[in-house]
Amino acid sequence: MKLLDSGLSAVRGYKTAGIHAGIKKAKRDLALIVSGKPAAAAGVFTTNMVQAAPVTYDKALLAAGNLIQAIVVNSGNANACTGKQGALDAEAMAKTTAQALDVRAINAQSTAVNPGTTADTKDGNQVLVCSTGVIGVPLPMKTVNDGIKEAAAKLSNTRKSAIDTAEAILTTDTFKKETAVEITIEGKPVVLAGIAKGSGMIHPNMATLLSFIITDANIEAETLQGLLGNSISSTYNMISVDGDTSTNDTVLTLANGASGTPAIVKGTEEYEKFAEAFDYVHAYLAKQVVRDGEGASKFIEVQIKGAATEKDAKLLAKAIITSNLVKTALFGEDANWGRILCAMGYSGAQFNPDTVDLTLASSKGSLLLLKQGAPVPFDENIALTILQEHDIDIKAVLQEGSAEAAAWGCDLSYEYVKINGEYRT
Amino acid sequence: MKLLDSGLSAVRGYKTAGIHAGIKKAKRDLALIVSGKPAAAAGVFTTNMVQAAPVTYDKALLAAGNLIQAIVVNSGNANACTGKQGALDAEAMAKTTAQALDVRAINAQSTAVNPGTTADTKDGNQVLVCSTGVIGVPLPMKTVNDGIKEAAAKLSNTRKSAIDTAEAILTTDTFKKETAVEITIEGKPVVLAGIAKGSGMIHPNMATLLSFIITDANIEAETLQGLLGNSISSTYNMISVDGDTSTNDTVLTLANGASGTPAIVKGTEEYEKFAEAFDYVHAYLAKQVVRDGEGASKFIEVQIKGAATEKDAKLLAKAIITSNLVKTALFGEDANWGRILCAMGYSGAQFNPDTVDLTLASSKGSLLLLKQGAPVPFDENIALTILQEHDIDIKAVLQEGSAEAAAWGCDLSYEYVKINGEYRT
Repeated sequence: MKLLDSGLSAVRGYKTAGIHAGIKKAKRDLALIVSGKPAAAAGVFTTNMVQAAPVTYDKALLAAGNLIQAIVVNSGNANACTGKQGALDAEAMAKTTAQALDVRAINAQSTAVNPGTTADTKDGNQVLVCSTGVIGVPLPMKTVNDGIKEAAAKLSNTRKSAIDTAEAILTTDTFKKETAVEITIEGKPVVLAGIAKGSGMIHPNMATLLSFIITDANIEAETLQGLLGNSISSTYNMISVDGDTSTNDTVLTLANGASGTPAIVKGTEEYEKFAEAFDYVHAYLAKQVVRDGEGASKFIEVQIKGAATEKDAKLLAKAIITSNLVKTALFGEDANWGRILCAMGYSGAQFNPDTVDLTLASSKGSLLLLKQGAPVPFDENIALTILQEHDIDIKAVLQEGSAEAAAWGCDLSYEYVKINGEYRT
Repeated sequence: MKLLDSGLSAVRGYKTAGIHAGIKKAKRDLALIVSGKPAAAAGVFTTNMVQAAPVTYDKALLAAGNLIQAIVVNSGNANACTGKQGALDAEAMAKTTAQALDVRAINAQSTAVNPGTTADTKDGNQVLVCSTGVIGVPLPMKTVNDGIKEAAAKLSNTRKSAIDTAEAILTTDTFKKETAVEITIEGKPVVLAGIAKGSGMIHPNMATLLSFIITDANIEAETLQGLLGNSISSTYNMISVDGDTSTNDTVLTLANGASGTPAIVKGTEEYEKFAEAFDYVHAYLAKQVVRDGEGASKFIEVQIKGAATEKDAKLLAKAIITSNLVKTALFGEDANWGRILCAMGYSGAQFNPDTVDLTLASSKGSLLLLKQGAPVPFDENIALTILQEHDIDIKAVLQEGSAEAAAWGCDLSYEYVKINGEYRT
C-alpha cells in the first residue's frame, strides 16, 4: 500500500470542484464529486431518529440500487428539521446537479476514464446529496442552484480542485481532512482517496458528519456496502468528541471501475488487500476528525486489552473516550486515573476492577498508574512531562479474556465551550 | 406539609456534628449523624461496577437487615480504588464511631428522644460509612479516627451542629444543601430533614454523591426502602451535570420513630402523606445539587409531555439534559432548538419528529420554537431576553401518548472545564 499526496485527484475517472456559492459568508460552501461513468455506491447514515432531508433522500436512492454518478454537498446549512420544503430542496439539488453535468463531455476530456455507459442523469436519481451546517433554516435555493451550476463548470481532476473540494465540505473544522492510497489489484494500480469533515457533534454511531471515499476499483455495490459497514464499526464508530450524534452524519463511497481490473470479489486475496486499504483510509480520516475536535488541545487514543468480548472492549473504550471528566482531566494534564476507572465502571461492560492495569503514555514515556486494581505511587513531575504532550495514550489491560478495541477522542477545553456557545448566533 | 428552616436539627431524636479533622486543608471534612435509638434504615447506591469501599460496606450492612444508629461521613477522600486496605479502613471508621459514641448519654441529654432499646454499637455493625473526594488515595486513618472522636464529643441537636454537618459532607460544592418539612401523622407532628452534597460526577443512575434524610417517623425498614427506590427514580435519577456516574453515590435514610406515632403502613392515607413529603425532600435536594453543578451558570428544567410511555419520556428528558451541545448552547444563551431535537432523536425513545412542539421559557416569557416539527420564526432579541435568565425551562410536547417526565440539569461553562481540569492537583 502506497500513500499518495494528491487527495481525490489521485483517483482516475473522477472530477471534483469546490466553490464559494454564498451560503456561508466567505468560505467555500459547495462541492461536487463526479464520476465519469456511473459508479457502484455504498452509504452509512446517522442512527438519529431525526434525520436531515438529504439523509432520507440518499437512503432511498441507495436502497433502490441505483448506480451513482455524482455527489453534491453544501456546507453552512444542514437542511435538517426543515419539513416538506427540506425534502423538496434536497431533490432539487440532485436535479440541478444532473442538469448541470454534461457527462459525455467529462468523459471525453478525461483520458483516464474508462469508456462505459453514460446514464441519463437529468432526473437526478444518480446524484447523492449531502448538507451540513446550521439546523432548522431553509436552504437558500437560488444561491445553492447557482452554486451548483458554477461548480459544474469548474469540474476538473487537478490537485487544486481536490483541495477546493476538501475545503468546501467543512464547517467549524480548522483544517481539511484528506488522504489517498494506491494498491495493486491483479497487477494494476487501484487508488482509493477520501475526504471528511466534522469537528463537533462527533460521537459513536456515527462519528463523522460527512465522509466521501472514491475509488477506481471495480467492485459491486453490495460488496462495497459490506466492506463499508465493517470498516465504520472500528473507525468512525469508535471516535468521540462530545457525545452528540448528528442528524446529518453520512459516509458515502463510490467505485467506478476506472482501474480496469477484474471485479474484486469477497473471499479472495485481492478483496483482503482492498479491505485493508479501505479500512486505512477510514481510520486515517476518523482520526483526523478527532484531531480537529472542537477546541481540542489533545489527541487521545484508548486501548483496551484482555476484555471478555469485543463488545465489552468497545463499551469500555467508548466510555473512557466519552467521559467529560476524563476529557477535562487530560485538558488539565492531570493523571487522574480514578476517572478513567470510574468511566469503565459505568460502561456496561463486565469486568473485575481488582485485576485492571492502567497506563498513561505519550512520546515522553509511559506511566503505570494502576496495577491489579491498586494505585501505584508515581512522580507527579514525570506524569506532567508525559501529559504535556499533544498525543496521549490510555491503555487498560483486563484479565477477562483476549478481546481488544481502540477508540479515539480529544480533551474538553474552554475552547469547546466557546465554539459551541457561539456556533449558531 | 410545612417547611422548616432548621435543617437536620428539626428532627427529634438525632444529634449531629461536623468538624475539620484535617483530611482537607481547612474546610470541615468529617460529619456524624446519630440517632438516639437504633433506627430503620434504607439505602440506594451507585450502579457503577467500580464501587468504593464504604459503598460495599454499607450494602452488606443494610442487606443484613441491621437497625442503624449512626452515619459517619468524611469528605476530601473517597476511599475508592483503595483495595483491601480501603475495606479495612471503612470498617475501622464504623468501629471507631461505635466506640466513640456513648449512646446512653445522648439519650439522657436529649429530652426529645423516645426511650427505647439502646443496642451495643461497639462492633460497628450499626454504623453506616460514607466517603467522598479524591479517588485512589488511602484514607489518613489517624486523622480520620481522631476526627471521629472529636466529632462524637461535639454531637448536639442545635442549628449550629446541623449547619456544620451539612457543610462537612461537601467537596467542590459552593453551598450546603439542606431542607426540612413537617407533616401530621395520626395527629402528631412528624419531621423529615435532609442534606446532600454533589456538584460534579452528577448523572442519572445515580445523581447525588451523598444524600442523607433523617426522620422521626415510625416506619419499617422494608417500607422505607420501597419508598426510597420510588423517590430516587423521579428525583436523583433525573438530574445530570456531566454524564459521569460516581463510584461513591449513596442515598441513605434513617427513621427512628421518635415522633411516637403508630407505624406508617403501605396503602394507607398516612403513607401517601409521608411519601409526598419524602419525595419533596428528595426533589428539593436533587434540584439544589444541580443548581450547584460545577461551573453552572444556568438551572435547566426539561419537561416532556405526550410521550408514548414513561420510559420514553424519561429517555427524552435525560438525553436533552445530558447533551453537551444543548448545555453549551444555553451557556451561550442561544435558542439553538436544533440541538434539543437532535438529542431527542438519539435518546432511544420512539417518536415522530414531525409532530413535536418545542418551547423555551423563563420568568421573562416563553417562545414556541418548533410547531409540529417545523421551525417557527422568532425574534432573536426576545429569545435573548428569555435566555439571559438563570432558570430556563425546555418543554417538548409529543403526540405519542400521555406519559410525561421531568429532568433537571445545568449548562456547560468555561468554569466546569476549569474546575475539572484542576480538581485533583
